[in-house]
Amino acid sequence: MSTSVNRLVTDTIALANGTTQGGAAISSSKIHSAVKIKSIVARLFSVPLPEVLSDAKHGDHTHFQLVTTTITLEDGSEGTGYTYTGGKGGHAILAMIQHDLAPVLVGKDYADIDGIYDFMEWHIHYVGRGGIASFATSAIDIALWDIRCKQAGEPLWKMAGGASDRCKAYCGGIDLMFPLPKLLDQIRGYLDNGFNAVKIKIGRDDLDEDIERIKAVRELIGSETTFMVDANYSMSVEKAIEAAKRFKPYDITWFEEPTIPDDYLGYARIADATGMPLAMGENLHTIHEFGYAFEQSKLSFIQPDASNCGGITGWLAAAKLSRQYNIPVCSHGMQELHVSLVSSQSNGGWLEVHSFPIDEYTTRPLVVEDRLAVASNEPGTGVVFDWKKLAPFEVK
Amino acid sequence: MSTSVNRLVTDTIALANGTTQGGAAISSSKIHSAVKIKSIVARLFSVPLPEVLSDAKHGDHTHFQLVTTTITLEDGSEGTGYTYTGGKGGHAILAMIQHDLAPVLVGKDYADIDGIYDFMEWHIHYVGRGGIASFATSAIDIALWDIRCKQAGEPLWKMAGGASDRCKAYCGGIDLMFPLPKLLDQIRGYLDNGFNAVKIKIGRDDLDEDIERIKAVRELIGSETTFMVDANYSMSVEKAIEAAKRFKPYDITWFEEPTIPDDYLGYARIADATGMPLAMGENLHTIHEFGYAFEQSKLSFIQPDASNCGGITGWLAAAKLSRQYNIPVCSHGMQELHVSLVSSQSNGGWLEVHSFPIDEYTTRPLVVEDRLAVASNEPGTGVVFDWKKLAPFEVK
Ligand SMILES: [Mg+2]
Ligand SMILES: [Mg+2]
Repeated sequence: MSTSVNRLVTDTIALANGTTQGGAAISSSKIHSAVKIKSIVARLFSVPLPEVLSDAKHGDHTHFQLVTTTITLEDGSEGTGYTYTGGKGGHAILAMIQHDLAPVLVGKDYADIDGIYDFMEWHIHYVGRGGIASFATSAIDIALWDIRCKQAGEPLWKMAGGASDRCKAYCGGIDLMFPLPKLLDQIRGYLDNGFNAVKIKIGRDDLDEDIERIKAVRELIGSETTFMVDANYSMSVEKAIEAAKRFKPYDITWFEEPTIPDDYLGYARIADATGMPLAMGENLHTIHEFGYAFEQSKLSFIQPDASNCGGITGWLAAAKLSRQYNIPVCSHGMQELHVSLVSSQSNGGWLEVHSFPIDEYTTRPLVVEDRLAVASNEPGTGVVFDWKKLAPFEVK
Repeated sequence: MSTSVNRLVTDTIALANGTTQGGAAISSSKIHSAVKIKSIVARLFSVPLPEVLSDAKHGDHTHFQLVTTTITLEDGSEGTGYTYTGGKGGHAILAMIQHDLAPVLVGKDYADIDGIYDFMEWHIHYVGRGGIASFATSAIDIALWDIRCKQAGEPLWKMAGGASDRCKAYCGGIDLMFPLPKLLDQIRGYLDNGFNAVKIKIGRDDLDEDIERIKAVRELIGSETTFMVDANYSMSVEKAIEAAKRFKPYDITWFEEPTIPDDYLGYARIADATGMPLAMGENLHTIHEFGYAFEQSKLSFIQPDASNCGGITGWLAAAKLSRQYNIPVCSHGMQELHVSLVSSQSNGGWLEVHSFPIDEYTTRPLVVEDRLAVASNEPGTGVVFDWKKLAPFEVK
C-alpha cells in the first residue's frame, strides 16, 4: 500500500460515519446523544437450506448460521444487527460477542458509533484483525446503525448516503454442482422473478465444463442479460488467465474471485494478461485489506459485505475508498440490507441477490421493480426479523 | 507480494512438514501412519496474572487465557496442543475448536499433518483467515506435532529442524506503565536470572518519557547487554521515525512493532529513514501476511508465534520463508515451546521470554544455561501441563 493509501485508510474510517456522501451530512440534532447501551443480547440460529449447495472452495452448505445482536438502550430504544455464515464459525462469533464485546460495550453512549467501532477494533485486535472478529463487530455495528436510523426517523439508504433508494441487482446461486439442466432452470427462475442479470459459480476441475456451462447460460439468456461468473478463488493465476481468455466470447461482465484474495498482485496479473474485469471483496475483512486490493489488484468492481467487514461503518469506509479509485461499489450476500447501502452511494454498482433463504425470515422480502432492487423506506436498517419463524432454529 | 514470493508461499506450506531443515528428513518409518483421531477435547482456562500489566495498545491485562486441545488417537496415544491470549478471544477460540474443527477432524489420519493443516485452512476460510481461526488451528496443530514427536521418540527441536537444542534468549515484560524504579528492578531480575538481553515496552504518550526510560535501562545494563524496545504498533510512521532517531545513542538491537503491522510499506519507510533494525511477527497470522512483511517491510528480525500463526506447521512455514530473505527467525511469547523451534533452525535468532507465568503450570520451567535457553529432550513438544494446578482456573 502506498503511503497515501495508508493515510487514506485512516481518514476513511474516521470520516465514514461523520459525513454522508451524495446526501446531506447527518444532522446531529436528529440523533439522541449520550443515551447509554443497557444490554446486548446475541442469538445464534442454524437455518436449514432447502437443499445442499456447493461451490468450488467452501464445500457443501446444508445450513446457514445467523447471529443476531439486539441492543437495548437505557431509554428503551432497540436495534438489531446481525451477521451470517455458510455454516461455520457461528458459535465463535456468538462467543466473541457475548464474552469479549457485550460486557465492555454496556454503558457506552450508543450514538458514538465511530468511537465504538474504533474501540472494538483495538479491544480485540490481538486475537482479531479479520475473520471472526470482523463478523462479530459487524453484528454490533449494524444494531447501532439500526438505532441511529430509527432515532433519526430515516431509512438506511438516506442515512448512509442518500444517492438513491434503488440499485441494479443480479441473482447468483451456489450452483457449481448443479447438473446443467438444473442450472438453466434456476437461471430461468431469476429472469422470471424480474432480474436482468445473473451469475453462476465456476471452478469445476475440468475447465471445459465451466466453458460449456457458460456457453449454455449465455445462449439461454441472450445478449441483453448481464452475466457474471464466480470461481470462489479456486484457480491459480495461470489457470485463471486461461479461463478468462476462454470465456471472452461470452461477454462476461466480471470474473469474481478468480484466485486467492490474499494474492493482490496475482489479480493484477490476470487483469493485465486478459483485460477481463475482475471483482472481489467478500473475503476482505479490514480496511487495510481493501486498501491493498484497490491499490494493487486492478479490480473493476469491489464487493464489500457489511456482515463481515465491520458492519455498515466498515462497508461505508470501503465504499468511500472505492470512489478514490473510481470503482463501483457492489455487495456480497445480505441483499436485504445491502440494497439500502448500494443504493445510497453515488458510485453504487450491482447488488448481489444470493440464494440463502433469508427472505423467509424477515418481514420484507426483497422488492424488485423494473429490474431494480428497492430499499426499504422505514426508519432503521429495513431488516426486521420474524423471530417466531426463526425460533425453531435457535442453537442454545 | 511479488509473483515469486507468492509461489514461495505456496511451496513453503507444502514443504514445511515434509522435510526438516538443518537436520535429517523426517523418516516416515518413525511415524505410525493411518492411525485415526478418536477425540479432541478442548478446555479454556483463565489464569490470573500476579499484577495488572499494560502496554501501549492492548490495555490492562489481568488474566491470560489458555486454550488446550488434547487429541487422542484410536490406539490410545495422546498429544496436547494449546494457544493463549492476553485475556480476550478465548471463548471464541474454544467455540471454533469445539464446533467447527473437532467434529470434522475425528476419524482423520493424525499423521497427515500437512493435509489436516490444509483442510482446516479451507474448512473455515470464509470466517477465518487470521485472527481466531489462526489461534484455533494452532492449538490443533501443536497437539498433532506432540503426537508426531512422541511416536518418533524424538524431541521437538530434532523433529523441527535439529540445528541445535539451545538458542539466544531475552526477557521482556508488559511494563509500559511501571514507574522507572520498578522497571529497573525488573531488569535487574532478568540479569539475576541468567539472561544477557532485555526488552522494554515503549509508546508512552510523551516520547521524552520513552527516551528517559531507554537511557536509564541502558545505563543500568551497561554496554554488553543486548537491548530491544517494543512499541506494540502504537506510533504513526512519522513518530516512529522520530523515536528511532532519538534512541540511536542507546544501541537498540531492534525496534519492535513501531507501527500498525498491516502497513508493510510503512515499516520500510521507517527502516529507510533511520537505519534502525525492525522486528515484527506476533500479529502476522497467515503465510500470506508473512510473505508481504518479508517482501515489503525491510525487517531485520521476524517473530512468528506458533500460538497464533497456525501452530508448529505455520511457524515452520514462516521460518522457511525467513531463510529466503536472510532474516533470523525469532519468536513471540510461548517460550516453553518456541525454545525448541528457535533452537531447531539454522537461522534461529532470539527467543522472547515473556512475563505470563506459564512456567508455574508446566512440569518443566524454562531452562537457561550460559545465557542460552535450552530445549527439552523429551519426546513431544516438551510442554506438559500440570492439570491440577490449572484446574481452579478452568472456565466451564
Ligand atoms: Mg462470490
Ligand atoms: Mg511485541
